[in-house]
Amino acid sequence: MRRTELISLIRKKKSFLCVGLDTDREKIPVHLRSLADPVFEFNKQIIDATLPFTVAYKPNLAFYESEGVNGWKSLEKTMDYLHQFRDSVFTIADAKRGDIGNTSERYARAFLAKTPEGLDFDAITVAPYMGKDSVKPFLKFTDKWVILLALTSNEGACDFQTQPLQNGTLLYQHVLSTSKEWGNTDNLMFVVGATKAVMLEGIREIVPDHFLLVPGVGAQGGSLKEVTKYGMTKDCGLLVNSSRAIIYASTQEDFAEKAADAAREIQVEMEKEFLQHAVI
Amino acid sequence: MRRTELISLIRKKKSFLCVGLDTDREKIPVHLRSLADPVFEFNKQIIDATLPFTVAYKPNLAFYESEGVNGWKSLEKTMDYLHQFRDSVFTIADAKRGDIGNTSERYARAFLAKTPEGLDFDAITVAPYMGKDSVKPFLKFTDKWVILLALTSNEGACDFQTQPLQNGTLLYQHVLSTSKEWGNTDNLMFVVGATKAVMLEGIREIVPDHFLLVPGVGAQGGSLKEVTKYGMTKDCGLLVNSSRAIIYASTQEDFAEKAADAAREIQVEMEKEFLQHAVI
Repeated sequence: MRRTELISLIRKKKSFLCVGLDTDREKIPVHLRSLADPVFEFNKQIIDATLPFTVAYKPNLAFYESEGVNGWKSLEKTMDYLHQFRDSVFTIADAKRGDIGNTSERYARAFLAKTPEGLDFDAITVAPYMGKDSVKPFLKFTDKWVILLALTSNEGACDFQTQPLQNGTLLYQHVLSTSKEWGNTDNLMFVVGATKAVMLEGIREIVPDHFLLVPGVGAQGGSLKEVTKYGMTKDCGLLVNSSRAIIYASTQEDFAEKAADAAREIQVEMEKEFLQHAVI
Repeated sequence: MRRTELISLIRKKKSFLCVGLDTDREKIPVHLRSLADPVFEFNKQIIDATLPFTVAYKPNLAFYESEGVNGWKSLEKTMDYLHQFRDSVFTIADAKRGDIGNTSERYARAFLAKTPEGLDFDAITVAPYMGKDSVKPFLKFTDKWVILLALTSNEGACDFQTQPLQNGTLLYQHVLSTSKEWGNTDNLMFVVGATKAVMLEGIREIVPDHFLLVPGVGAQGGSLKEVTKYGMTKDCGLLVNSSRAIIYASTQEDFAEKAADAAREIQVEMEKEFLQHAVI
């Protein structure tokens, strides 16, 4: 999906919500567990219920890989299902990959390519530690995106990401300023944790126009108001993720309905923020 | 596998060779391609041929994931096969994972657990960018190992890993000194690229006793002599990887035989190094 299409989609739905499909077999409502593929059935119903309020879906690869071959099958089916709504959702493989060039090429093929084996996501999250040649192979796919980790929302972010370098910049700032040269605003986004919303101000000085994927609103405790205050651009420039607060809003038979309620609630908040920032 | 067992294995085989199973369907000899699972058949024959000279095998996850469900099946079969030799090989999932705690837990389960869905590797490579809570879940498995990226052998290593921090240490040195507190010499190793063998001297000042996984000998151009000179400890303390130079030594029907020759040649070099450093 192109940047202009993503922006149109955000304007149309008045939402910049990304729903994280961290689908945990043990948290799937009991009535679905006897089905042939409970994970896919759960995802399908979550997608159907939340689609009007959501611009992106983000399957978290770990939850599928921990189910082995069956998990990969559930993921393929979920992607096939999402591709039916190709014009109305953006898809992100939350995979945090990154390796030497010939290996990153393979990961890019696995997640971005349209071949029978490729999962044909619009975007993939990538870890920056191994540098330019570990990221570049993902940027070669037309109309596909790299979402590079910059500042994450977990406690361990302070171990390395916020370490000051010799010139005074923090590591994540150096990651932003270095890596933005590897791609452009049409194929590169950054992950920025919402638990540190005030840091978005400084981040916007380095990457004023790039889209940011902001996890950590909801279960991880970030505030939507803060995030939009410091991070929103004239093109919105934000995808804000919520996973558990939506997909596990209820663990009963009404899980899809409650997920829709939770997604709608966030969408309504997002619409207010749009009006305040005059984005729509 | 425990550290003492790994050291015994190295002493017994007089080898610290790790063979990287970066199995590329397009490079598999033609005569295997009509079989039901050419990737597994290739791996099986490579393992059979190189087992006497090899202490570890390291499937590179990207090569399996880019084949979709079939790739995951080939990987499962390869691991089932390797588990027949459980006492005589160490297995490494070259996955370079790392995410927030609940997600890393899932990856740990996928690669280290013994459950029907777990692949039951002895070790997994992990990227450090997200810090302590992204690494810790992998360290909870008894007799399993994290192999944390410190200094990689690719060009992009200089983008972030060798950046000097405010106190003068380089980022990868800070990664080593910080992360060694998260585990111990019985469950934590580090990836150190062989193209920078002289840097091993400084690395050994920070982590004198940890095992190091050294990629980049062979196709990536590192020298075994240099690596042992600067990196070997009284317990050996090294696993040196070679992938393409062994598994693609020939692309003809004699591929397994040629792979054995290539592995034996490295093992003979390794045995010489042992004698010189009085490790055996």
